[in-house]
Amino acid sequence: MRSYGQYCSVAKALDVVGDRWTLLIMRELILQGPCRYTDLKRALPGIATNLLADRLRDLEAAGLIWREEAAPPVATSLFHLTAAGAELEPVLTTLGAWGIRYMAAPTERDEVRS
Amino acid sequence: MRSYGQYCSVAKALDVVGDRWTLLIMRELILQGPCRYTDLKRALPGIATNLLADRLRDLEAAGLIWREEAAPPVATSLFHLTAAGAELEPVLTTLGAWGIRYMAAPTERDEVRS
Repeated sequence: MRSYGQYCSVAKALDVVGDRWTLLIMRELILQGPCRYTDLKRALPGIATNLLADRLRDLEAAGLIWREEAAPPVATSLFHLTAAGAELEPVLTTLGAWGIRYMAAPTERDEVRS
Repeated sequence: MRSYGQYCSVAKALDVVGDRWTLLIMRELILQGPCRYTDLKRALPGIATNLLADRLRDLEAAGLIWREEAAPPVATSLFHLTAAGAELEPVLTTLGAWGIRYMAAPTERDEVRS
């Protein structure tokens, strides 16, 4: 995460969640609840595997998600929102409300989320 | 601007304003009103000159800003928000509200905006 180096709360927020894919990862955790790595990978077509791993590590270091090493039968890592992570919901809501203007119709290249 | 290729209004919004620096350029136009190129350059320490020019061209193409070729004595381009651009204000407000948690104190590397 590169910092903008500005004492401004918008810039500080973007230092933490402004990297490509980060807000979409948070969207999935807000919409789906706790996710496995494979849940996130499936929900984010086109994300590179190592990039998803990097973003999850950054989000964990920033205190926005935490990792549970779930016992069998889950037997894998589950990613959960922290309180600070869950508080991003209004940001995603206003961003999504603004983005409605671009939702006239899916383009041929759009994946339609099921 | 690379597209996430998802039929989701958050992803669509980020297709348009998710690139590095873009939301900070919009912040300046919302806070300052119409800006010259030099006003934006000064408010965004660290942005590369060609990157600012690229972002302004992308924002103009996306219909979020428009360029006025101002007559003397201004005698330069002035960048204005369109209605769609101005409607980003709630996004910046919620993002800034979320970012307040990181504002405890400026770090040594932070530029404090005057």
